Amino acid sequence: MPAPIRGFPQAEFEQRTERAQHAMAAAQLDALLLTTEPNVRYFSGFHSQFWESPTRPWYLIVPAEGRPIAVIPEIGAAGMARTWVEDIRAWPAPRPEDDGLSLLVKALGEQPRRFGRIGVTLGHETHLRMPAADFRTLFESLDGFEVADCTDLIRRLRVVKSEAEIEKIHFACQITSDGFEALPAAVKTGDSEREACRWLRRDLLARGADNSPYMIAASGPGGYDDIIMGPGDRVLEQGDLLIIDTGTTYDGYFCDFDRNFAFGSAPEETRRAYEAVYQATQVGIDLARPGVTTSDLWLAMWPILETAGALGNDVGRMGHGLGAQLTEWPSITPDDGTRLEVGMVITIEPGMAFAPGKLMVHEENIVITEDGSRLLSRRAPAELPVVA
Amino acid sequence: MPAPIRGFPQAEFEQRTERAQHAMAAAQLDALLLTTEPNVRYFSGFHSQFWESPTRPWYLIVPAEGRPIAVIPEIGAAGMARTWVEDIRAWPAPRPEDDGLSLLVKALGEQPRRFGRIGVTLGHETHLRMPAADFRTLFESLDGFEVADCTDLIRRLRVVKSEAEIEKIHFACQITSDGFEALPAAVKTGDSEREACRWLRRDLLARGADNSPYMIAASGPGGYDDIIMGPGDRVLEQGDLLIIDTGTTYDGYFCDFDRNFAFGSAPEETRRAYEAVYQATQVGIDLARPGVTTSDLWLAMWPILETAGALGNDVGRMGHGLGAQLTEWPSITPDDGTRLEVGMVITIEPGMAFAPGKLMVHEENIVITEDGSRLLSRRAPAELPVVA
Repeated sequence: MPAPIRGFPQAEFEQRTERAQHAMAAAQLDALLLTTEPNVRYFSGFHSQFWESPTRPWYLIVPAEGRPIAVIPEIGAAGMARTWVEDIRAWPAPRPEDDGLSLLVKALGEQPRRFGRIGVTLGHETHLRMPAADFRTLFESLDGFEVADCTDLIRRLRVVKSEAEIEKIHFACQITSDGFEALPAAVKTGDSEREACRWLRRDLLARGADNSPYMIAASGPGGYDDIIMGPGDRVLEQGDLLIIDTGTTYDGYFCDFDRNFAFGSAPEETRRAYEAVYQATQVGIDLARPGVTTSDLWLAMWPILETAGALGNDVGRMGHGLGAQLTEWPSITPDDGTRLEVGMVITIEPGMAFAPGKLMVHEENIVITEDGSRLLSRRAPAELPVVA
Repeated sequence: MPAPIRGFPQAEFEQRTERAQHAMAAAQLDALLLTTEPNVRYFSGFHSQFWESPTRPWYLIVPAEGRPIAVIPEIGAAGMARTWVEDIRAWPAPRPEDDGLSLLVKALGEQPRRFGRIGVTLGHETHLRMPAADFRTLFESLDGFEVADCTDLIRRLRVVKSEAEIEKIHFACQITSDGFEALPAAVKTGDSEREACRWLRRDLLARGADNSPYMIAASGPGGYDDIIMGPGDRVLEQGDLLIIDTGTTYDGYFCDFDRNFAFGSAPEETRRAYEAVYQATQVGIDLARPGVTTSDLWLAMWPILETAGALGNDVGRMGHGLGAQLTEWPSITPDDGTRLEVGMVITIEPGMAFAPGKLMVHEENIVITEDGSRLLSRRAPAELPVVA
């Protein structure tokens, strides 16, 4: 597929901001204060790799009415000026004695006080990307405003993706599917996990990926015992099972799925475990539709793994949201209970220990549609692929 | 150069922890609580790309005596067990109603109370990677312990690099120098900024890089007006100046430097600006030695840029520390005043606007030695390189 257009039309930022302002009024919030890359980007369109530097804080205020206000380091003022944000207040950062704090106090203090509450993400899956001492000082300095948690407001806005967002995720998924499908012809016994990942990273860049911020590998005879630590220098041998899991990006949006490969051959128990997670994934995909909950998905998938002899699942969930982050709310767990809506993008990711020290994890990415779901990744082979 | 051995011998973690514990006693801290990837990795050796997922918090406690204690999601327990950390307490994350908090309260509460103070990074250039609501609850729940800022303690430990750390940074610098030197033969007029970066990303992977978490590009006729937003789809033309700046990693350690390239030819003012930043860089490198301060470096470099007609510098500094992060403490500013010590790794990064909307930035990475400094990157050409 051709690479989607980069960025978003201004109307998209207007809609995101209006939806936020609607929810803010309902939640009795006079403004939102955002500090992390995905949240600042969501409302402003400011898209820069510079967040990799933890030195400087960046702030975006969503007021009760009108466009967001940026309170940012001078180094970012030119870039922010190319977004739809008009009110940009910059300071010569880094300035340890006052790294934007007085500017931020002033900008928030100017917001009309209707409820006396400013929304900040304080809850699960969030953090504040600013010095904790500055956060304390900020609300001590803000006359007439108290802090209120806006975690739920933000995640409910971001969880439903626009068509343009879905296209970007779809493209990341498609080129990653291309790369995974080409891998068995390019990687062979005698290569290390690291070499396999290096090949795939380079292949995905050539196919149009921006980067692969996440690419792990694990392998072992007939199974692997971990899915977050590699790749290592372990050399792939006949009888090994290899998993590669990647979060690869296009224009700030992630895919997140894995693929398993057997080298030479696979033991019967390994092939059966693959079939079980494949089947559980299919059940999840087939069940996913508006109104079904994440817990319904978990409860439908788990019995298939249990019947196949699952000893447990250390991942803690069997799928999650994704988009501007590798993982986003919600989680597919027995008690999460989030109702699926049209436009949500999620992973279906059943996994289990099928023998002591042997895991099998499978994953696809889907978007919820009016009458079901649509695959964004290309479905993995129904039988464990074998590298000759 | 051959790729350095991955990881560190256990003695390195013992030394880091002992140095920390020494400083903790002096600062009257009974324990440190760490929440971010570089800090957890520094003391434990736990090195995983899984931090890309913001869902789950990870905690490491450095007690007054003995090895660190890990309070982490179950998905990471197997990986943490391969480090020198022995006391690993895991919970089935994500668990929104108690995502490790009760385990963390218990583990911290067990620490012997001598001073009644637990060190947490609260200061400049830091943030807490945990839900802010949980942080508040944590210290409300901890009888007899108050929170104290340990920003300075942590940065003074991490700023001096071991030989093994320096080797990893050196390798990242050397392969990136290789890539930059090969670029003029591989990139040509008619390519876009994005294509130039894609070529360099793939080249650096082939040379042994793990990834390039940071790679920006900017270009324009005779100059660029920004150094943090690209790469974009702008096509490189005769007369353009291109900058690429990259933080490329090997085994968790960054290089961070840039290179400038003229296409076809460069205006006189552009060549003169290049010579000025080159010269300022040389002055910085030549001056850097133990006892000299970051402010001495700034004050020595700036007059060269001013004489060359500098209109200003929006970067906010002319260099900084680097290592496990793209940017680390300290900053080269007029009033930072940090005294250089043997083993510090820093960038020398003079930059200026040499005409309205035209920037020129130069950068090298050095390590402070007994009697001066040693280049980790290979020195850029003294004259602006021209892509034919």
